[in-house]
Amino acid sequence: MQLNYMTGALVALALATQCATAADLPPKPTVSDIVKESKPGDWRALDPENTLYMDLPSGRVVIEMAPDFAPQTAANIRALAREKYYDGLYIIRSQDNYVVQWGDPDEEKPRPFKAKEKVTAEFTAPVASDKRFVRMKDIDGYAAQVGHSNGFPSARDPKTGRAWLTHCYAMVGVARGNETDSGNGSQLYVVSGHAPRHLDQNITVVGRVVAGMPLLSVMPRGTGPLGFYEKAEERTQIKSVRIAADVPEAERSQYEVMRTESPIYQRVVEAARNRGGPWTKVSPNHVELCNAPIPVRKK
Amino acid sequence: MQLNYMTGALVALALATQCATAADLPPKPTVSDIVKESKPGDWRALDPENTLYMDLPSGRVVIEMAPDFAPQTAANIRALAREKYYDGLYIIRSQDNYVVQWGDPDEEKPRPFKAKEKVTAEFTAPVASDKRFVRMKDIDGYAAQVGHSNGFPSARDPKTGRAWLTHCYAMVGVARGNETDSGNGSQLYVVSGHAPRHLDQNITVVGRVVAGMPLLSVMPRGTGPLGFYEKAEERTQIKSVRIAADVPEAERSQYEVMRTESPIYQRVVEAARNRGGPWTKVSPNHVELCNAPIPVRKK
Repeated sequence: MQLNYMTGALVALALATQCATAADLPPKPTVSDIVKESKPGDWRALDPENTLYMDLPSGRVVIEMAPDFAPQTAANIRALAREKYYDGLYIIRSQDNYVVQWGDPDEEKPRPFKAKEKVTAEFTAPVASDKRFVRMKDIDGYAAQVGHSNGFPSARDPKTGRAWLTHCYAMVGVARGNETDSGNGSQLYVVSGHAPRHLDQNITVVGRVVAGMPLLSVMPRGTGPLGFYEKAEERTQIKSVRIAADVPEAERSQYEVMRTESPIYQRVVEAARNRGGPWTKVSPNHVELCNAPIPVRKK
Repeated sequence: MQLNYMTGALVALALATQCATAADLPPKPTVSDIVKESKPGDWRALDPENTLYMDLPSGRVVIEMAPDFAPQTAANIRALAREKYYDGLYIIRSQDNYVVQWGDPDEEKPRPFKAKEKVTAEFTAPVASDKRFVRMKDIDGYAAQVGHSNGFPSARDPKTGRAWLTHCYAMVGVARGNETDSGNGSQLYVVSGHAPRHLDQNITVVGRVVAGMPLLSVMPRGTGPLGFYEKAEERTQIKSVRIAADVPEAERSQYEVMRTESPIYQRVVEAARNRGGPWTKVSPNHVELCNAPIPVRKK
């Protein structure tokens, strides 16, 4: 019994019956088939000025920031990183099926001069700032339109003229208190469970973990309220957070993200929407925004 | 800066603007407020005959099986557990943002006499077997109707007359090969990431982890294809899997699940759909099936 229940494929026809002899569906290209066919121009490198390396004892987490959506927040995080604010701070929270969060557990470490204490909320952006949006045809309960913007899952509402990044797995947000301008980037979280999409438009989403997510997602769950660690020794210490542009070329992690505005990416989405082959018996002909993979590869 | 971004609240009005001075939304009861107000009759105990205890070195995982949807599979798992088939087997797979899976890595352990090698697929059930379905009003991209059946997230299609359990976080399924009757319960998986709803109707879903999920979700990710562990020493050994009915009363884990057919559960769903209070600035007036919490408590 091999357990390759990810492979295989599907069909637009809803075979909603039990049938031990269901016919195999015709083969279809998988996401990895499509990635193999891609051309160099279907990919872009990460912008070193918008890439963070968070080095943990277990390895490196690579975060791509999204200045189209959160320019001021990205600038503040850059300032914090450049003055080494995050170095020696901790993973302070791991709430099952929700988020992993890092920062200063005691909120005592002085902030650098160049970083701001308050940053205007960037919960949404004008659609005009979001030039590379490509809409998915799939319906969504949380937003009028969903799709991808330059490698990030996003949504928009034509009625309000606003666009925003969505809380899919691996998306990085800026913790805040009750005041909308109380998140300055000194504490960040990553989505580590089922997408808490109700947070969309309520908090600044600043980027995505493009590599190293398994280092964060397995952090032992905190037993305090909201998954905060109760004891200092439960926390994992952050060695350093650097802007890729400040790291010598030889020490950079070289990743590329598939261009979500490229035609090939629509084939990736379609491969997730409708699978084929011998394993899949029924296809939903639908893919939820957060189930559409965004391919990343080493250069 | 306290990071209580789960607390707080919401409003049906879509304030899709940046505003550092957004007014607080009126307070609304939270899920925990509602749980506190519940009456004993709003809860049911787990049925000992349909409850599995998987004891790991780190503690106990409690799984509730759903015989309304998968009676033959539940019977086979019961037979396997009663003949101690799972004892000494392993967690064999941990794929980031997908599943954690357990069983015999080498498929060599003899199966007990009473368990079957093949079990008819129970990917869906007649809606008539699903007597306790309560529909949510929220739209869903994967199914015509979604809601809850006796404490499990479920879906149905009135056109086909079929109902099925859905692949939300913590749901337990039966690994299979390409043949629909090749899953016999000897290898099981639990959803440990964003709901892979495209698996719905393609595989037998047999239950839900009601306690101990954090013991499974933090399993180090396997580095082999599909997250399988490549080396024997990476696997965690299962001490035992028992049916609760076979465990002395004093050693049982006493949990109760909120009755999802009770009126109070609709208030829980509404609390997830529309939050209020000082933190939330925008409410989606929507909750995705897998974001609707199903409360569990210790008796």
